[in-house]
Order: sequence, then structure tokens, then C-alpha cells
Amino acid sequence: MTYKGKLVLAYSGGLDTSVAIPWLKEQGYEVITFTADVGQPIDLEGTKAKAIKSGASKAYIADLREEFVEEFVWRSLKANAMYQGTYPLNSALSRPLIASHLVKVAEEEGAVAIAHGCTGKGQDQVRIEVCAKALNPDIVVEAPVRDWHFSRDEEIEYAEKHGIPIPVTKSSPYSIDENLWGRSIECGILEDPWEEAPSDAFKMTVDPWDAPDEPVTIEIGFEKGLPVSLNGKPMSGVALIEMLNQIAGKAGVGRIDMIEDRLVGFKSREVYECPGAVTLIGAHKALETLTLPKEVLKAKRELEVKYAELTYEGYWFSPLKDAIDAFIDKTQEVVSGVVKVRLFKGQAMVVGMKSPNALYREDLATYSHGDKFDHKSAVGFITVWGLPIKTWSQMHGKKSDQVSKAIGME
Amino acid sequence: MTYKGKLVLAYSGGLDTSVAIPWLKEQGYEVITFTADVGQPIDLEGTKAKAIKSGASKAYIADLREEFVEEFVWRSLKANAMYQGTYPLNSALSRPLIASHLVKVAEEEGAVAIAHGCTGKGQDQVRIEVCAKALNPDIVVEAPVRDWHFSRDEEIEYAEKHGIPIPVTKSSPYSIDENLWGRSIECGILEDPWEEAPSDAFKMTVDPWDAPDEPVTIEIGFEKGLPVSLNGKPMSGVALIEMLNQIAGKAGVGRIDMIEDRLVGFKSREVYECPGAVTLIGAHKALETLTLPKEVLKAKRELEVKYAELTYEGYWFSPLKDAIDAFIDKTQEVVSGVVKVRLFKGQAMVVGMKSPNALYREDLATYSHGDKFDHKSAVGFITVWGLPIKTWSQMHGKKSDQVSKAIGME
Amino acid sequence: MTYKGKLVLAYSGGLDTSVAIPWLKEQGYEVITFTADVGQPIDLEGTKAKAIKSGASKAYIADLREEFVEEFVWRSLKANAMYQGTYPLNSALSRPLIASHLVKVAEEEGAVAIAHGCTGKGQDQVRIEVCAKALNPDIVVEAPVRDWHFSRDEEIEYAEKHGIPIPVTKSSPYSIDENLWGRSIECGILEDPWEEAPSDAFKMTVDPWDAPDEPVTIEIGFEKGLPVSLNGKPMSGVALIEMLNQIAGKAGVGRIDMIEDRLVGFKSREVYECPGAVTLIGAHKALETLTLPKEVLKAKRELEVKYAELTYEGYWFSPLKDAIDAFIDKTQEVVSGVVKVRLFKGQAMVVGMKSPNALYREDLATYSHGDKFDHKSAVGFITVWGLPIKTWSQMHGKKSDQVSKAIGME
Amino acid sequence: MTYKGKLVLAYSGGLDTSVAIPWLKEQGYEVITFTADVGQPIDLEGTKAKAIKSGASKAYIADLREEFVEEFVWRSLKANAMYQGTYPLNSALSRPLIASHLVKVAEEEGAVAIAHGCTGKGQDQVRIEVCAKALNPDIVVEAPVRDWHFSRDEEIEYAEKHGIPIPVTKSSPYSIDENLWGRSIECGILEDPWEEAPSDAFKMTVDPWDAPDEPVTIEIGFEKGLPVSLNGKPMSGVALIEMLNQIAGKAGVGRIDMIEDRLVGFKSREVYECPGAVTLIGAHKALETLTLPKEVLKAKRELEVKYAELTYEGYWFSPLKDAIDAFIDKTQEVVSGVVKVRLFKGQAMVVGMKSPNALYREDLATYSHGDKFDHKSAVGFITVWGLPIKTWSQMHGKKSDQVSKAIGME
Repeated sequence: MTYKGKLVLAYSGGLDTSVAIPWLKEQGYEVITFTADVGQPIDLEGTKAKAIKSGASKAYIADLREEFVEEFVWRSLKANAMYQGTYPLNSALSRPLIASHLVKVAEEEGAVAIAHGCTGKGQDQVRIEVCAKALNPDIVVEAPVRDWHFSRDEEIEYAEKHGIPIPVTKSSPYSIDENLWGRSIECGILEDPWEEAPSDAFKMTVDPWDAPDEPVTIEIGFEKGLPVSLNGKPMSGVALIEMLNQIAGKAGVGRIDMIEDRLVGFKSREVYECPGAVTLIGAHKALETLTLPKEVLKAKRELEVKYAELTYEGYWFSPLKDAIDAFIDKTQEVVSGVVKVRLFKGQAMVVGMKSPNALYREDLATYSHGDKFDHKSAVGFITVWGLPIKTWSQMHGKKSDQVSKAIGME
Repeated sequence: MTYKGKLVLAYSGGLDTSVAIPWLKEQGYEVITFTADVGQPIDLEGTKAKAIKSGASKAYIADLREEFVEEFVWRSLKANAMYQGTYPLNSALSRPLIASHLVKVAEEEGAVAIAHGCTGKGQDQVRIEVCAKALNPDIVVEAPVRDWHFSRDEEIEYAEKHGIPIPVTKSSPYSIDENLWGRSIECGILEDPWEEAPSDAFKMTVDPWDAPDEPVTIEIGFEKGLPVSLNGKPMSGVALIEMLNQIAGKAGVGRIDMIEDRLVGFKSREVYECPGAVTLIGAHKALETLTLPKEVLKAKRELEVKYAELTYEGYWFSPLKDAIDAFIDKTQEVVSGVVKVRLFKGQAMVVGMKSPNALYREDLATYSHGDKFDHKSAVGFITVWGLPIKTWSQMHGKKSDQVSKAIGME
Repeated sequence: MTYKGKLVLAYSGGLDTSVAIPWLKEQGYEVITFTADVGQPIDLEGTKAKAIKSGASKAYIADLREEFVEEFVWRSLKANAMYQGTYPLNSALSRPLIASHLVKVAEEEGAVAIAHGCTGKGQDQVRIEVCAKALNPDIVVEAPVRDWHFSRDEEIEYAEKHGIPIPVTKSSPYSIDENLWGRSIECGILEDPWEEAPSDAFKMTVDPWDAPDEPVTIEIGFEKGLPVSLNGKPMSGVALIEMLNQIAGKAGVGRIDMIEDRLVGFKSREVYECPGAVTLIGAHKALETLTLPKEVLKAKRELEVKYAELTYEGYWFSPLKDAIDAFIDKTQEVVSGVVKVRLFKGQAMVVGMKSPNALYREDLATYSHGDKFDHKSAVGFITVWGLPIKTWSQMHGKKSDQVSKAIGME
Repeated sequence: MTYKGKLVLAYSGGLDTSVAIPWLKEQGYEVITFTADVGQPIDLEGTKAKAIKSGASKAYIADLREEFVEEFVWRSLKANAMYQGTYPLNSALSRPLIASHLVKVAEEEGAVAIAHGCTGKGQDQVRIEVCAKALNPDIVVEAPVRDWHFSRDEEIEYAEKHGIPIPVTKSSPYSIDENLWGRSIECGILEDPWEEAPSDAFKMTVDPWDAPDEPVTIEIGFEKGLPVSLNGKPMSGVALIEMLNQIAGKAGVGRIDMIEDRLVGFKSREVYECPGAVTLIGAHKALETLTLPKEVLKAKRELEVKYAELTYEGYWFSPLKDAIDAFIDKTQEVVSGVVKVRLFKGQAMVVGMKSPNALYREDLATYSHGDKFDHKSAVGFITVWGLPIKTWSQMHGKKSDQVSKAIGME
């Protein structure tokens, strides 16, 4: 075995990444671990101790919650980013953050490689490797879990051999990833799309039918596209999301159940619970309909699809994402106001909005006195608007003949 | 006054279109009325009698519910058509249907014109006129309510003078349009977007908090994109929608509250209740995620936006809509299966799906034994997938450097 | 006649806008003229004198060529803006510039209105009015030529009555608009799309078959998306465009002949000659293919279509255009380099490119020694890339069988 | 060595695919060759003999020119398919055709595998493998040239050992692929994008400066989107393309020089010559502008981009392509008429068009007598068209103020 140099391993404290430490050492690396707190439940000191005990030469722990919110979650919220219109990217958003810190620590430590605990069929391997290469094209990326070909029994045997404690609790039937922006649940019974996701799969949200019978109405204040207050009280990003996760989760809000198209070419059934994310994205989108013109909304909605794909597919650090950010930031300058949301047994429904920048004008929209809309303009407008189809109709014969045939009116 | 010829008036039986009869006669027309049953509450015989009493020379009544569903609603469902992602187009879909029948009756009667009761600021005037011109470019379209400049009092006085009965019941504070696919509610307190839509605005749906405490789970069977059965029982389109309106409406499902961008250039606050439509569109979209490949889903979702706009903007009878229909019909060949939906206090949530055409394959997606996915392929895939950003990174230096560096020609 | 206040008229010096002066005075306005030099052939002093002689109380003349290039043409070039993929927007780009100066002078002069000489069927009326309202929503916009209903003879009679000189030269069979970015030619024989545009319609370009037999090869230097040098010699924007118009025009480059869809609902046959514009847009697009990643190119190409439409349709001053500009500016940071263009008998062909930011890497692309591409990765990539269609094929049977088989639920 | 079964090899007659025969036999296959005539220069009988001599058990030869045109080229022409707006897909279009025949022969022969001579960095390996899997998901695809790791010398030595004749002529500095729809040229000096493609790279086209001094004007007749006649004479597809390749090639028309983004993640400099393709696509696009409404053109242009990508990326046999074909076929029903094209020293310029389905109407477009456009409608149209930006301006103040003002919630 040749000594290859230092390596920085993304370390969760679980069995896989613990086993990876001696395994990577056997490949010739000195292993330094890096553990990020992005809002998941974690015993920071215990994790650190376990890394060292498993053979790491050094163990980093970092509270990245604020950076996660300010640099990743808020950008994603401004983009209303939901992959395939449904998945709020809770897990996907943490990967570029973690990759960037792995690379940063590697550079500081003079390490030649980074490593992650992903398997060969998820998207997280893609995200971490591609994000890392975007930040440092020369870094080596190791994926021990993808490479070692251990069966479950072999892995446990190997762990015991290397003094790595085996979790004694019966393992969850699900594979879980959790952070401030939500929780991803996979595996087990969920692999049959005909089966409803059972209650025990969820942790952040109560079953909607067990939620309180009384609706809770909250007011979220936005400034330039970002939430800054809850019920009139200014709050930091991390605190606001934590609070919303509690309030909305208690109302059963934020469960998502979908068939998702993975980057690696197959469909997967995915379950998420994202009480804060679902509430905030809904409120933000609504406020945009009040403050942004129709054509801006339409163009932005199209770019949002691409934005979510880039995030999902590992292209967070990329010139296209940067350019879309520039577009979005320009639009968000006027997205300020207050959104009233009713949380009730599984739903977050926008029930009121106001904004100093509202483009809705009652004097144009009203049907009563004070109507400022020039009704006569409509006549000219319709003539011009309908001219192309009138010309088509004159050329191709009366459409009604065709329609009569098509719809059986003859 | 010169005699201009026959005219076919879209007649609702309300005050406006009743007053339009003598008014149009004063403009020189012989007035024939046409009243369509598209599922709204209507006294067909009374309406007919009222038309004649108001001065019509002839009064047509037609039950168009089946044609509405088969030729308009079902096409729209296959397209998941929701204007601005939210409005199921319930009112918009009935306009081309009505326009086509006005033109047909006009052609059969040898009439030179048609007329509608729309004002000068809605989109219905656009839809009816543009659809009519698409079907018969030479037809004249009159819009008496837009042209007569009556105040409310003047209209009542004019009605009394012409023996038209004035409704004695206190008029609703809302302006309503209703059919099988849903109900549109405008005006009154709704013109203030900060105010929640009050309970008395709704008729098809109960307030979610008053809905039953027990969830109702239904199974909708689809064949080639269209619903054909409910809970295993085959049903016709009209019957299925009526049944769903009842079941879902009782669960408080289908309320929509939005700021909508009108074609005529301003924003409007619109409230809808569409229990059947919301349930069916949600189920249909979910089934598509199970049976259509990712790239088809993506391209179709983009065309769906255009489809909804065309419908909203009066271009139902148009070559672009026909071409998109051809695209959609091709995709729907495989959209067959059963969708399980839980209706509960305002929500229609898809909780299970199965299809003989499912592209989801447990043997690819699973994390357990029987995994058929070739994990090693992922390594090559990621290398190629990440090559463009790695090349960018090699050219432009590390991302973090890049920010603080001018990238010019130097 | 009531005095309405001051009005600022966009004044070309031609018959229509000269006649507009006394006509607008008859409507109650004091008329101030504004004439912009955007590179068209114009006698500035004579135009000023004619305005005063025709009854203007004041006549502004402004050389806007530099502002035109820096604020309008260069933005458009960075966007490769061509309406319907073909029209470089030469006339359209000058309208927001002129509208902004009309509004500015009106505000400085305390005028209540502006006026333009457009007819009721072009797009320029839309552009000037909409741009003016964007800048000052309260300004009144008059369109005398659209409103006065003079026949040609009546107009001449009216001109003579008001002492306005009638052009003695035989009038051109074409309607012309010209500036630095190109020349638009309409009317006359061009209204028959089967007829080739005759040689006498063109002024900036020679007939390709009369162009020199020797190709001319030029090198255009770009920095951050903008041309900064010609054949290695740094040049200002105005000078560079003027020089290119000469060189490329002499080679017969830049003629455009198209069927164009006007905003006001009909198709029009339009002929343009834009030697500099066509050369620069071609060179700029090519340089982008060398320096921008595939995904950026793709997203930008889509936004370019919208950008050209916004310009064409009068939405230059709009939040959507601002947001797209932000996107584009971000992308242009790396679009620097030199493009070699061969001008020859009607064509501007890019025949070479180099850039310090080139993403093309010979060591990846080469088929010879030094190949750095990892061929083995391709195997994994193809497996993953083809997985969706393989899954589809497994589900739906062999393609050939598929055609003759119903894919239902059976 | 175990016997694996029969294999069908795509056989060009060149060194690589000849060497592949004994090499594949060494892997355990019985090798059957398949050679397609798609319009490239080929000695059919000699190729067959060489295959047998090299060890094939059977050698198929098929003239696929008509199928190539009718089923692939014509579909692509209706889609105006050009990858990245520039490459007419001449080589890409032949791959699904060849793959389909390899699969068909394999099924008829009871073969278990197919094989192709592509390397590991081109797109052809992707196209053939993905198309084959789409048609038969169980077929094995071998890529000997990608796998054998021969150096050039080793390959020659191996060939000599197996009695395969080594070409005695000095090998071309370029890598060439040719068929009816065009010719692709790679390698050699072309790998430096600053170098102009030299004259000796081209075969179907003369250098533009050596083309005749007299323009040639031709008339191409189209029916439902497809060319059916040349200068009034009805012609079959194959004959028409061959004739156009000659006429246009002689005029120097159809050279393409681009930086292309390959599917496998890097940029490549590609040179093509496609005289017939360039002429036909230009004429077809022009005819569409005359016969299709603006909105159809716009939606179709967007789908054309996807269509070209699908073809380029190996997804010819796919449900998305089928759905786009349905869209396109619907639009082409009216794309009939005659297009006049002038071929001159490198250019194919459309100089006239006529169609029984022209939507261009001189009575709407004209500025002279007989103008049927209702000028007054424009006033109402502009008011409505500009309302959104006027509202924005009223809300956000004058544009010029806006720049220097923060628009927050204050």
C-alpha cells in the first residue's frame, strides 16, 4: 500500500461512514472527517469522538445552519425551486454546501481527495462529485460505499474487526435524510407506489387527521423575496424556518409523495415532509402574483424549472445558475409584502395578501363605481387580437364546417 | 331604423340579456335566443318563456353537457390545463362551446349576427368574439351590455318599460358563472385581496373545517388519459364529474383563490370552486408521472402552459391548439391506471397509484436485494456528466477565486 | 378651441410630420419639435429651420448616435436579438430611444403631450406610445397621421395652405427608415412576396453579384460581449459600426427579406439591409459557442427570442427586459476573443475564432495523441443515458410491435 | 473461449470494421456483417467480398437510400432540425436507420448481439446503442474499437496477421462520414478553431470564390411540408436531394463550420457540407413563415430545438419524438407552395414565395388603396397592450427615478 495523502470524508456518524474510515486508510489515505450541522438531529461531541475512535486523524464539526439558509435555501426560495414541480430539494440543497466545505477543508489541510458515503444509484453521489469538481477540478473524489462491495453482514464483520460500534437499536425500515428545509424518506414499503406512506415514516408532521381542529392563521412578512417576519415579529432565517417547521408540522402541513425521475435514468417513489418549505414557497409564489407583471411571472416560472433541475442534477456551482440568479434577483426587488396563510389539517392556504408594490389595482379590476378601465379600448383590442385567426379562417374555410364534423354537430 | 337581419343572442335568462332583446331590436335586429345547459342551475322552460316574453322571435334551448365534457373538458384534462398554474378554466372552457353553437344556429337561421351579454372588461367578450370569428370570419358580433351605457337605474327603468320582470330577490353580492367543471366568483368584498373569501361565496364546497372528520378515499380509473370509472364502477363523463363534485365538494375540496392576469391587461382577484376538476387534474397529473418518461413530462408541462393560455385567451379553435392536441393525444396512449385519492377537509391527496404501463420499476429503484441497477455505470456517467463544469472550472479557476477576479482578455 | 398646453413632436422633417405641426396647433397645442440624429441621412440645420417655418415654437435637434449604440444597440447585440430569428430590430431599437427623449423634453418643457407621425397599422405607434407610458404614465400621446383622415391630395392641399413646402422630387416607391444599425424598406412592389426585391430598394449594400471578386477577411475583437476593435485597431462603437457598414455593405452583406408577423395581427413582407448588424451578430454568436457552456447557450437562446419580442413589441422599458439583461450581462463576462470573418458577395462567414476563455479544449476533442478524454466513462454514461428508453421498450414491447398493438388496460 | 452466438456488425469496409471481424470472432461470436447504402460512395460488391474474406460468415448489403429519405430526412426537414441551430444532423440521422436494420437482421438471424465501429468519444456510439436498446432492450451491443486498445501499429499488425488488406493510399488527414443529406469532416487541422477549413476538406461543394459568376435561381415546390418538385418537375425524394446536392454544391452552397457541444460533455469543432440540406431547410422555413400563424411558428421553433437534440442524442425512437412528430405533422398540412431560391457563390437566398395557403394578405398589409386594416382598432389595442407597463410605471414611479431609488417596504 502506497501512501496517497490526506482525504476529507463527509462524516455522518452512522455505520457506513464509520466503516469508511478504516477502509479508506487501507487504500492509503490519512482520513480527516468533516461533519456539518444543517439542522438534522445530531450529537456533535459524540460524533466527533466516534470519528476519532474509528481511526480519523482529525475530526471537524461545523454549524452550517446559517450559511445553509442564507446561501442555499433563500436562493432556492426566491426561485420557488421544486424539482418536477413538487420536490422542494431539501436534501439536494445541502449537497453543494457540504461539497464546498469538503473542498475548503481539503485545501486548508493540503488533502488530495475528498470522500462521501453515497451509493451508486442515488443522485447525491452526482451532486457531491460534480459540485466538488466545479470548485476544484483537480480534487480526487472517493466513494467507498459504492466501491467496497460489502454485503450487510460483511460490513458488520468488518466494523467489529475495526472496533466500530454497531447500532444496537433495531434499524429503521426507512432511509432518512434530514435538515432545516425538510426530511426525505425512502425505502421499505414506500417502494410500492400503490401503498400509502404509513404514519411511522413521518417525524416533522403529524397525520393531518390528528392535527388540531382549529385552523391557525399566520402572517409572513417578505422583503425583496425573502421572509423577514412572522406575525409581525422580525426573525432571522434559521429561527423563522425552525418556528414554521413546528407550527406547520403540527398542522400536518408539508407532506409530499411523488414518483420522481432520477438523474441516473429511473423513476423512484419519494416521500418528503417539508412543513416550513411548503408554507414559505406557497406564500412567496402568491406574493409574486400580486407584485410581478404577467410576462415576468411567465418567464420566471420557466426559469424556475431549470433552476430546480440544476440544483437536483449537481449544477449548483455553474455559470447557468449564476445567470438565472441574476435574473431572479432583479425580479425580487419588488417582491415585498405580507402574506396571510391558514394552516389546517395538512394544508397551507394563502387567504390574504397585501403589498406596497401591488400591481393589482381595485380601480381597474372593480365592476362597481370608480371603474377606471376604458371599456371602449376592448373593442379595438379584440379586433386586433382576433385578426390572425380571422385571417386563418378566411383562408382555410369556415372552421365551423370542420368543427361541425369533428364534434358531430352535422 | 333599418332592418339589419336576424341575430342569435346568447341568453342566460338574467336581467342583462333580457334587456338586450328589446335593445337589439331597436338596433334593427330580429332576435333569436340561444340558451345552453352546461350544468349550471337553470329553469329551462321558464327561461324559454322569458325570452319570448322579452321579445325574442324564437328561443333555442340545448343540453350541451355531454358535448361540453367530451369535446372541451376532457381535452383540457388531458392537458392538465390550469391558467397560470392555478385556474382550471371552468368558465373559459364553456365559451368556445357556446360560441360554436351561436354560429351554428346563426348559419341555420340565416342570421347575420350573434350577440353576447359580456361587459367590456372581462375575457369572455374576447373568447366569444374570437371563437366566433374563427368559426365564421364574416359573422357580426354585437355586445349590447358593452355598448349601451345604461346605469343600473336606467337599465331597470328600460326593463320595466319593455315588460321585463325585475328579479325581486336581493341580488347576490357576487358575480357568478357556473357549470359542470366549476364555479367562478367575483366582485364584492373579493376585490380586496387582503380579505379572505367569505363562506357565503361558495356553493359547491363546504368550508374545510366543517367537512367530515373522516377522510374519504376514492379510486379513479383512467384509460388513455381519461377517467372512466369511480371506485371500480364504470361511469360516463357527465355522471363521473357530477358525482365527484358532490363527494369532493362535501370534503371541502377545490377552492381556489388567486390573483389572475387578465388578457385585457390588468390583475384581478378571482375565486373559484372546482371540486371535481381539482380532484381529477391532480389524479391525472400523478398518473402521468408513473407512466410517462421524464422528457415527455417536461415537454408536455411546457405545452400545457401554452394550452391553458390559448383556452384563456380565446384561441380554442386555432391551428396551434390543434397541433398541441395532436402532441397530447400521442402521449396519452399509455396514461392508463388507477389512482387512489384521499379527500379530507379541503385536500385531494394522491396516496397510491398503479398502472399496467408503469415505468417505475421496483427492481431498478430498490435499495434491497434484487437491485438490477448497474452501480458501476454511475462512475462513468458522473465523469461525463460533470465534464463541462470541470472544464469551466479548469478554465476559469476555482469558483471562489473567480468571484474576486476579472475575467477579461488581458 | 381650448388651449391644451405644450406638446413635443417627433419631427423627421418630412411632409407628414411637417403637416402635423399646424394640425396639432389647430387641436390646441403649442408644438415643440424634437429631431434625433441616429445615423440616418439628415440636414440638421435645414430640418430645424423647416420646423420653425411650419409653425413650431421651438425645435430641438440632438445627436443621439452614441447613446443609441451604447444603450440600445449593444444590449441588443449581447442578446443576439433578431425578431423571429431574422430581423435585427434596426428600426425597432430606435423607438424607445426617441420616446425617452420626447418624454424628457416634455418634462423639461412642462409639456402635457408628445406626438409621433406613425400610421395606425405599423408597430412604431405601439412602440412609441408604450415606451412613453412606461416612462411617464400620465403623458398624453397624440398620433396626428393616424387621426386626421387626409387623403394624399388633401394633405398636400393642407400643406400648401399652411406654407409647408411640398417635396418636388419624385417620391420614392418605398417607405424607408434608416439608422446606424440598418435600413428598413417597405411598400411598392415589395408587397408581392413572389417578386424579388429590386436593386433600387437598397442603398447600404451593393448587389452581391456586383460585389468585388476578392473576399475580404476582417478580425473583430470582443470584450465581455461587445466589439472593441477591428483588425486589431481599437474603435468606439459608433465608428466601428459605421466602418463595418461600409466594408460589409460593399461586399453585399446584410440583406434580409422576410415575411414578418406584426404585433397588430397580420403578416407583412419586410426587406432590410443591415451590413454591420448582420456581421456583428454572426460573429458574436459564434464567439459565444466557443466560450459559453452548452446549457448556458441553450437557456440564453430561449431568452433571446423573448428579448427580441419585447423590443419589437414596445416593452423595452420593462421589468422583464431588465431581468433578462441581468441574465445576459452575467453570461457575457467571459465572451471575449477575436473572430475572423470573411465577407464575400453577400455573405459574412465566420472562418476562425480564438479566446482566452475558450471552453474548447483540443486535448479533449482530438482524435490523435494526447487525447485526455476517458473513453471508458462513455460505457457507463451510455448505460445510464439509455436507461429510460430501455425501460420504456421493456414495458411497451419492441417498437415495431408497438405500432400494431393497442396499449390499453385490457 | 465460449461460443456466444451470432452477432451483426455494422460494416463499412474500412480498416476498423474489417479488423473487428476476427477480433469479435476471438470473443466468441459468429460475425455477420451489414452494410447500408445511404448515399455514400461505396463499392457494394467489393465491400461484401471483403467482409467474407475478413472472416464474416454472411454479408448483408442494403440500399436504404429511399427509406433514409422518407422515414428520417423528411421528418427532420419538416422539423427544420438543426442541432444548436446550425448542424443539419446529416450523420446523426443515419444512425437510427442503421441501428434499426442491425436489430432487424439480428432478430431474423437469431443473433444475440450487434456491434459498431465507433470509438469511445463520439456521439455515434451513443446513438447506435440507445436506438438499438429502444428497439430491442435485450440486445447486446459490442463496440470493438472502443474496447480493443490497439495502437495504430498494433491494429495494422493484427490486420496483417488476419489477412485483412491494408489501404495503400495515403490516408486522408480527415475523418469523414457521408450520405445523401451531407458530409461530416473532422480531425487534422480542423482541431484548431482559429484555422479556416482548407479547400481539400470539401468534396460536395466548390469554394464559393470558384463558383460560377452567374446566380442560379431554382423553384422548389412543397406539398404538406415536403419538397415534391424542382423547377416545376415532379421528383422523388432521393432524386431531388441528389439533384440539389449537385446544383447547390456547384454554387458553393452548404458549408458549415461550428463549435459543437457533444453529448459526451466537451466542445468539438465540426465542419460539414450539406448543399441540398441547407437549401431545402432554408426554403422550408421560409414557406412556413408565409403559411403558418405567428403563434404556431413560435411554438414549433421551440419544439424544433428539442427535436434536433433528440436526434443528436440518440432518442430518435422515443415517445417524445413521436409526440413532437404528431404536433409537426398537424402543422404541415398547410405548408404547400413554391419557393424561389437563388444559389450564388456560397449562398442559398429565398427571393420569392407563393402559396395557395398564404396567410399574408396584401389587402391587410398594404399602405396603398384597398387597405382593409381597421386603423382605429389600433388605438384600443395599444391602450390595452400598454396597460400592464403603465400600471407598473404608476406603481414604481418614473423609470428614471426608479434606477436611483430603492423600492422596498419602507
